[in-house]
Amino acid sequence: IDQQAVEKAAQRLDMLTKPQGSLGVLEDIVKQLAGITGNPIPRLGKKCVVIMAGDHGVVEEGVSAFPQEVTPQMVMNFLNGGAAINVLSRHAGADIVCCDIGVASDVKHPSLIIKKVRYGTANMAKGPAMSREEATRAIEVGIEVAEDKIKGGVNILATGEMGIGNTTPSSAILTVFGCPVEKVVGRGTGIDDKGLALKIKTIIKAIEVNDPDPSDPIDVLSKVGGLEIAGLAGVILAAAAHRIPIVIDGFISSAAALVASKIEPRSVQYMIASHVSEEPGHKMMLEMMRLYPMLHMKMRLGEGTGAALAFHIIDAATHIQSEMATFESAGVSRSSSR
Amino acid sequence: IDQQAVEKAAQRLDMLTKPQGSLGVLEDIVKQLAGITGNPIPRLGKKCVVIMAGDHGVVEEGVSAFPQEVTPQMVMNFLNGGAAINVLSRHAGADIVCCDIGVASDVKHPSLIIKKVRYGTANMAKGPAMSREEATRAIEVGIEVAEDKIKGGVNILATGEMGIGNTTPSSAILTVFGCPVEKVVGRGTGIDDKGLALKIKTIIKAIEVNDPDPSDPIDVLSKVGGLEIAGLAGVILAAAAHRIPIVIDGFISSAAALVASKIEPRSVQYMIASHVSEEPGHKMMLEMMRLYPMLHMKMRLGEGTGAALAFHIIDAATHIQSEMATFESAGVSRSSSR
Repeated sequence: IDQQAVEKAAQRLDMLTKPQGSLGVLEDIVKQLAGITGNPIPRLGKKCVVIMAGDHGVVEEGVSAFPQEVTPQMVMNFLNGGAAINVLSRHAGADIVCCDIGVASDVKHPSLIIKKVRYGTANMAKGPAMSREEATRAIEVGIEVAEDKIKGGVNILATGEMGIGNTTPSSAILTVFGCPVEKVVGRGTGIDDKGLALKIKTIIKAIEVNDPDPSDPIDVLSKVGGLEIAGLAGVILAAAAHRIPIVIDGFISSAAALVASKIEPRSVQYMIASHVSEEPGHKMMLEMMRLYPMLHMKMRLGEGTGAALAFHIIDAATHIQSEMATFESAGVSRSSSR
Repeated sequence: IDQQAVEKAAQRLDMLTKPQGSLGVLEDIVKQLAGITGNPIPRLGKKCVVIMAGDHGVVEEGVSAFPQEVTPQMVMNFLNGGAAINVLSRHAGADIVCCDIGVASDVKHPSLIIKKVRYGTANMAKGPAMSREEATRAIEVGIEVAEDKIKGGVNILATGEMGIGNTTPSSAILTVFGCPVEKVVGRGTGIDDKGLALKIKTIIKAIEVNDPDPSDPIDVLSKVGGLEIAGLAGVILAAAAHRIPIVIDGFISSAAALVASKIEPRSVQYMIASHVSEEPGHKMMLEMMRLYPMLHMKMRLGEGTGAALAFHIIDAATHIQSEMATFESAGVSRSSSR
């Protein structure tokens, strides 16, 4: 983070025709982007949402409202342009890339990046979701996909995911990192009360069976995580390493961000939170990373949809810094109290 | 509100490739726009932010951090394209119209709509801010300006304002409508603790001196309101009368919305809340009207800036309804539990 650029950005913001600080989060974003890019008047160019898709063995416990076949079906929907994330990314001027990092079946499409680490995770209620090597490899896949886009000229990334059942490992990760399981677990894509109780029981069981070590984020990922979650942690770490801002979507993306923050705490400085989802654990995750969600959309879809909406706001912030008049240029009097 | 269109919109939303309701507020917006426009797949065309500018005699009590000359200076800034609202509207594809409904001095610019009801309000701490006739005329001005834009093809409006000191009458209006004054009053554009105490004292005094009748919204407007607040109430009422959605900006705009809702409760059905501002009373106003602010930007600028940001989200909602694939067209399996 370039502190000098942050200060220069702040000085310019205070010269613009508005009371100091009155644009709130827009000003915070400008300063953060200045620090990341080294430019006090930051500009965004190519945007890309990276969608990691993977399946979860734990669905055999009955924790999801949708059948597992929906994961590859939705991957095809992304590739054919019909999903919510396609609509919202298009409208925000962002590209999409979709990577099969662990779908339980084979998906074929010319635009799909196939870097399958394994065919879905194992059922974490019975043993580790994957091996330590697989978790490490999945993080590397995320780094590879992100670096490929960054080399292609993308200068802001967002996280997206698809994986039936993936609120369960995300909730398990948050629980291991210290939040009470009853407060963490939500209804995902739409389970009922009975399903909710089962989901809580399953997470408690998975943590008992695997005993993940909260001081070892790779251990947590491999035992109660997911392939797409590990992949997104890699995307986030790559963005931070290359000094690229990374927009964090909802609950699953934030589980990946939490893991990334445990691997490299400084990665948080590159994260921009987008929305706070309906999953109760999401707010807690964001608070643990001291990230502030600007959008309160009551959304619970994932895919990167909240992040795609946030692109508009981030764009707006950069326009404020580059296009607004100063007090001097506009001939406007300043506040008497400052 | 066309209930049949709302139901048709809801039916289509449930056919799209996402768990039912998982796009939260985006789905709420689609249904609201369907009800307003009668089209289950609503489309937005021309957008316009109406900025009403007026001055406040109460500034002689010392309630604002900025001098009154800033009102005409900022009006010129709007007309020359240098203010935050210019940048954000441009970026959201919205026009701006600025109306001098009560600036305390003369402003001249070819693009300015001059419909001055009087040169600023009187000091409400000493007597009524304006006469009942002037308040009524100011509402009519808002109706005229909005109708002119609607005739010109605008089909979504947003409220914006400029008026040094205008958080004071807005706070007074909310207090008269039943919220405790200490909970209502905030720092506006940036007064200190001493200024805050003075502002509270001034509002209490204004209400004592004028004794406005909460059951008579025009009485409240004329005694402790403002010309731009009355004008915006007119804009909102005109939008509702013409079945046009109206995006409500921050604290001052919401004071106008509250007055409009007291004049015609059904006008609330046409309002879309944008952001919740840093003024503590704003959240209470929105709750009184049961409006939900989707943006949490910590903003306190006014001008229509929060509403302009919300245009992006409202646009996104319409794209979701018109562009997403259905479960059938994409070959995606549905949830088992529904």
